[in-house]
Amino acid sequence: MKKVAVLTAGGDCPGLNAVIRAIVHRFHDAGGEVVGLRLGYQGLAERAFLPLPLAAVSGFLTRGGTMLGTSAFDPTREPEGVERCRAALADEGIDAIIAIGGDHTMHISRKLVTEHGLPVVGVPKTIDNDIVGTDWTFGFDTAVHVATEAIDRLRTTAASHDRIIVLEVMGADAGWIAVHAGMAGGADAILIPELSLTVADIAAAIRKRHARGKRFSIVVVAEGALLRRDADDPGAQVLHEGGSGRYHFRRLGGIGEALALALEEELQVDTRAVVLGHVQRGGIPTSTDRILATRYGIAAAECALRGEFGGMVALRGGTYTTVPLADVHGIKTVDPETLRDLELLLV
Amino acid sequence: MKKVAVLTAGGDCPGLNAVIRAIVHRFHDAGGEVVGLRLGYQGLAERAFLPLPLAAVSGFLTRGGTMLGTSAFDPTREPEGVERCRAALADEGIDAIIAIGGDHTMHISRKLVTEHGLPVVGVPKTIDNDIVGTDWTFGFDTAVHVATEAIDRLRTTAASHDRIIVLEVMGADAGWIAVHAGMAGGADAILIPELSLTVADIAAAIRKRHARGKRFSIVVVAEGALLRRDADDPGAQVLHEGGSGRYHFRRLGGIGEALALALEEELQVDTRAVVLGHVQRGGIPTSTDRILATRYGIAAAECALRGEFGGMVALRGGTYTTVPLADVHGIKTVDPETLRDLELLLV
Amino acid sequence: MKKVAVLTAGGDCPGLNAVIRAIVHRFHDAGGEVVGLRLGYQGLAERAFLPLPLAAVSGFLTRGGTMLGTSAFDPTREPEGVERCRAALADEGIDAIIAIGGDHTMHISRKLVTEHGLPVVGVPKTIDNDIVGTDWTFGFDTAVHVATEAIDRLRTTAASHDRIIVLEVMGADAGWIAVHAGMAGGADAILIPELSLTVADIAAAIRKRHARGKRFSIVVVAEGALLRRDADDPGAQVLHEGGSGRYHFRRLGGIGEALALALEEELQVDTRAVVLGHVQRGGIPTSTDRILATRYGIAAAECALRGEFGGMVALRGGTYTTVPLADVHGIKTVDPETLRDLELLLV
Amino acid sequence: MKKVAVLTAGGDCPGLNAVIRAIVHRFHDAGGEVVGLRLGYQGLAERAFLPLPLAAVSGFLTRGGTMLGTSAFDPTREPEGVERCRAALADEGIDAIIAIGGDHTMHISRKLVTEHGLPVVGVPKTIDNDIVGTDWTFGFDTAVHVATEAIDRLRTTAASHDRIIVLEVMGADAGWIAVHAGMAGGADAILIPELSLTVADIAAAIRKRHARGKRFSIVVVAEGALLRRDADDPGAQVLHEGGSGRYHFRRLGGIGEALALALEEELQVDTRAVVLGHVQRGGIPTSTDRILATRYGIAAAECALRGEFGGMVALRGGTYTTVPLADVHGIKTVDPETLRDLELLLV
Repeated sequence: MKKVAVLTAGGDCPGLNAVIRAIVHRFHDAGGEVVGLRLGYQGLAERAFLPLPLAAVSGFLTRGGTMLGTSAFDPTREPEGVERCRAALADEGIDAIIAIGGDHTMHISRKLVTEHGLPVVGVPKTIDNDIVGTDWTFGFDTAVHVATEAIDRLRTTAASHDRIIVLEVMGADAGWIAVHAGMAGGADAILIPELSLTVADIAAAIRKRHARGKRFSIVVVAEGALLRRDADDPGAQVLHEGGSGRYHFRRLGGIGEALALALEEELQVDTRAVVLGHVQRGGIPTSTDRILATRYGIAAAECALRGEFGGMVALRGGTYTTVPLADVHGIKTVDPETLRDLELLLV
Repeated sequence: MKKVAVLTAGGDCPGLNAVIRAIVHRFHDAGGEVVGLRLGYQGLAERAFLPLPLAAVSGFLTRGGTMLGTSAFDPTREPEGVERCRAALADEGIDAIIAIGGDHTMHISRKLVTEHGLPVVGVPKTIDNDIVGTDWTFGFDTAVHVATEAIDRLRTTAASHDRIIVLEVMGADAGWIAVHAGMAGGADAILIPELSLTVADIAAAIRKRHARGKRFSIVVVAEGALLRRDADDPGAQVLHEGGSGRYHFRRLGGIGEALALALEEELQVDTRAVVLGHVQRGGIPTSTDRILATRYGIAAAECALRGEFGGMVALRGGTYTTVPLADVHGIKTVDPETLRDLELLLV
Repeated sequence: MKKVAVLTAGGDCPGLNAVIRAIVHRFHDAGGEVVGLRLGYQGLAERAFLPLPLAAVSGFLTRGGTMLGTSAFDPTREPEGVERCRAALADEGIDAIIAIGGDHTMHISRKLVTEHGLPVVGVPKTIDNDIVGTDWTFGFDTAVHVATEAIDRLRTTAASHDRIIVLEVMGADAGWIAVHAGMAGGADAILIPELSLTVADIAAAIRKRHARGKRFSIVVVAEGALLRRDADDPGAQVLHEGGSGRYHFRRLGGIGEALALALEEELQVDTRAVVLGHVQRGGIPTSTDRILATRYGIAAAECALRGEFGGMVALRGGTYTTVPLADVHGIKTVDPETLRDLELLLV
Repeated sequence: MKKVAVLTAGGDCPGLNAVIRAIVHRFHDAGGEVVGLRLGYQGLAERAFLPLPLAAVSGFLTRGGTMLGTSAFDPTREPEGVERCRAALADEGIDAIIAIGGDHTMHISRKLVTEHGLPVVGVPKTIDNDIVGTDWTFGFDTAVHVATEAIDRLRTTAASHDRIIVLEVMGADAGWIAVHAGMAGGADAILIPELSLTVADIAAAIRKRHARGKRFSIVVVAEGALLRRDADDPGAQVLHEGGSGRYHFRRLGGIGEALALALEEELQVDTRAVVLGHVQRGGIPTSTDRILATRYGIAAAECALRGEFGGMVALRGGTYTTVPLADVHGIKTVDPETLRDLELLLV
């Protein structure tokens, strides 16, 4: 093993540069060489290389985003895509690819390994922590940190004005950020895809707070939750199908605003919505994410050095290991134990 | 001078509790007594008192919001409002009122002093820094700190995806937060009420960046800016009259989204909007704001102890002083020197 | 199960109040009652009770330290100590004790359960993460966060002046904080009790950096490491036996300064020492620690509600569980996998 | 004016890179050119140039330290020093020098201008805020922010253990950091060069707290304060002459430890010392410091563009201006108004 190519694909995430840095350190230590690919798999097909000697990754631990750029480019769906990739590997003497990305990237990588014999190692990446096969992904702790800090700040303004504040956080398919930030920030109600709570349920929780003399509340909602009025009228109950209007100008507003409006109507309490948006996915990673990213990078480099392809590095039960790329599909939702603990807190 | 009543009114602001704490410390030192009024002037008219001995303000330095609550209650517009206030003062033996609030509160306070002879000292409060008569208000530095941190985070995600990100910050009438956070965060374009920039101007600035190889941009917009397409067609040009849809569910979206949409159409570059909202006005104050709030509190207490009423404490040219409440009206916009420096940076 | 008493013992730690809050929430939910004991087991023997209704723990999630105070009081070594505790439980109708503390507290608790039949549940607490039986302890992530931020700041000043900066962090018996902060902060050398590195080894690593053109270095040392000059002269080599002079005014300086002095002599490079000290163990817990503390609190409350005594709640392999108090003794040092990854990074 | 050389000298400081960035932006805008000098004036004498086009300063706003390095090199004291500088300017076509440094650098710069006719503009730099001629220096707000955060963290550990914690902060000649951080953090006693407090005075203040039921205290001490036992025995009273043992391994301990020891002896209360050290002077600048540094940079560039030499840019009474370098000597101590407010708080 002499030369490895690294790419980042999909949405950006704090810790991507730390993974790259760790791979460079490990290969430097092993006497190998690392080259970066610009814009995901596109950089392989189009041979957009960036040499990555040790000096090039100085400062990468603390830098958010990815210095390589990203794309959703899928060589298996492009004309001559796989062939161009194979030729690039051969011509450049690249012995392995480390692909850092989400489930879409893992899916592409699996096809490249199993159908086309390319030497790929996967590294899971998502701030949402919803990728199957690993317990934790880097970027998630940073997103939770940012969302928790927001709740800490929102609490004082909500309390000063006896308001409800609804905070919409990321999580299109699973409620990991909402649950963790909500638990860490002491949210009073949480709406996530995993639990079929309705506006009526949340209003009931807030009424209980009012009865205890608490005149303000913080509600956290994952962008992908389904908003229903109550459970009794299944036909007419859907107020919002999830998804944030903030990110793509749908103009109808996202679920955070829909929920704020519904609560204001239901409870006749002054209500505000805050949509954190991209602030959750940028900037300096937390120490936890830097370590996780670094150790994923080392683990992936080890796989490449050993010539083990077709796996995704993973953290399972506290141990760094690999899982077959073929097993990485679907959505990892929040586990029942965490949900149970969460519900016990929402009194 | 034996007993002073303190109230907070208008929107909440980091540092309010620090002002209260400083007043309590100063009166404790002078052998006097402090009582808090709940919900602004309403707490005076309705005699909602909260005794504030030294022990009651422990921890107040770092606590955002206001422990007294706020309202927009105006005794001069309520039946028997002024009379009830006067009677409350007499019955409780209160010798002075310290009113912490924005220009509306200063306006009420001025009427109470000049038309009704009540003993009021004003303390300026606004995260927007746009109150006339003082150079700086507490809460502003915290808001700028939060907005700057957001820009720091957004920069890496914008750079990773070659995107434009529009950050909408508070500032309904003046661009102080946008200008300071934009300068501190290195924004590439800034839209504020004070400058009549158009979508065309901002697009031109971004095109200059593209020409220099910078494929991403951060644009900061104050919520109250006027959004116009370009300067050539004054009739049809207004895209948004300012104001944030985020806060009040207008459903049309705020200026941040309108600007993002316009830039995406104009430049055909992937664009996102982030609306910081109430995160800017809550939470632990910065050290700068704690000091400013503390010194305003001491200055106000000194006025009350000396029996000087009808003034608002102020920081002018680096010196703590007072200005007549009668002079506190209108909007303090960003000074020309700052705007000039800002424009020099936006290359 | 109707009434539980909670105590905190040993050194303070971010997250203690969050554990207490979670226990109060869980018992409130179950219709039970919680009483706090002042100053650890002393509060039981001396009946220093603090009622803890739901309202009493408002704001506890973000508050560092412990609202109950702590001590090292051991009822089994005090005259009539156990009898006084037993009588207090009976007289107050307390059905269970939840003891939050380190290995000393777990040791006391074990004796109280097995030798005296008292109903105790243990919760592990140490910022050092070195307690046996659980993978992670709350407070540790906050300590690592603080130490990592320090490294981030020290890096720029070291680089500006071509200096070596030695950062001494906590860790009397194990190097967890040093290893995690060092990995997250990108330290260039790390000295911990687990690895027998010498001044000569560290100097060699720094010389390698100099050879690569890096003129500054950050070295992290755990306070409890043994400082030896080199491995060749075992008799005369010990420069410092570990332990920080900072905390107890030994006047000889701690290991951080001893190491800085030795490196300056060895390398003739301007060197500085920074001793973080108690900053590591106070203040607002990170979101990770708030969650860990909260879930430990719920788990302990569950044990008490089920009448299961003699165990310590623990997080093992990602699962919340309990371990027998009898198994909690000794020091949990940093695992070999982490040490191996660390060494691979220190190139 | 076509080409300007920029240098940084003396101790590093958050915001130095932001000054450089602003100068580069301003000259770019004016069609000029900027070159950096490595290691202060040494880089001029030895022609160690670093070209600084716009692209070179990308990311400089948030980067602590100085990318140019620093030194205390004084051309007027080196053989042929001034001649070599003059020749370098002529040969390179450099029209102006912007020297960013402390009072020593301003002193050198004054000599170069008045005695040798070199075209120098000064920019004040010190985290200590004690340079004469300007109200505020960049880096100071960051240092205060770091020290205040430390107090916030130390408070909870002090309170949990009923301890006194002494925090030693920078400030060899003036107490600016101690006073501002102490006021922002709510310290219970502050020892600075400007006020002749003794151990007896501080112990008295702490005894007053004990009498009020407060069993813990935070004391902030500037490294350069003089520590005396009490005022009655002037001969034998000096316990420490100021200066921190931490930074230079004097082995006797700094004033922080000496004060902690003295208070522990005097009050028989468990006491700890924390010495912040270099953490105060590194890392990402606060938004306030970024703005101050940026505007100093623009102001200095304007001076150079106008051909005005011999002045130091300054912020006085809220206005950016210049003062003659000849007026910049001595120490600016904390103003009496601030000290008076501080004393009123220390009840």
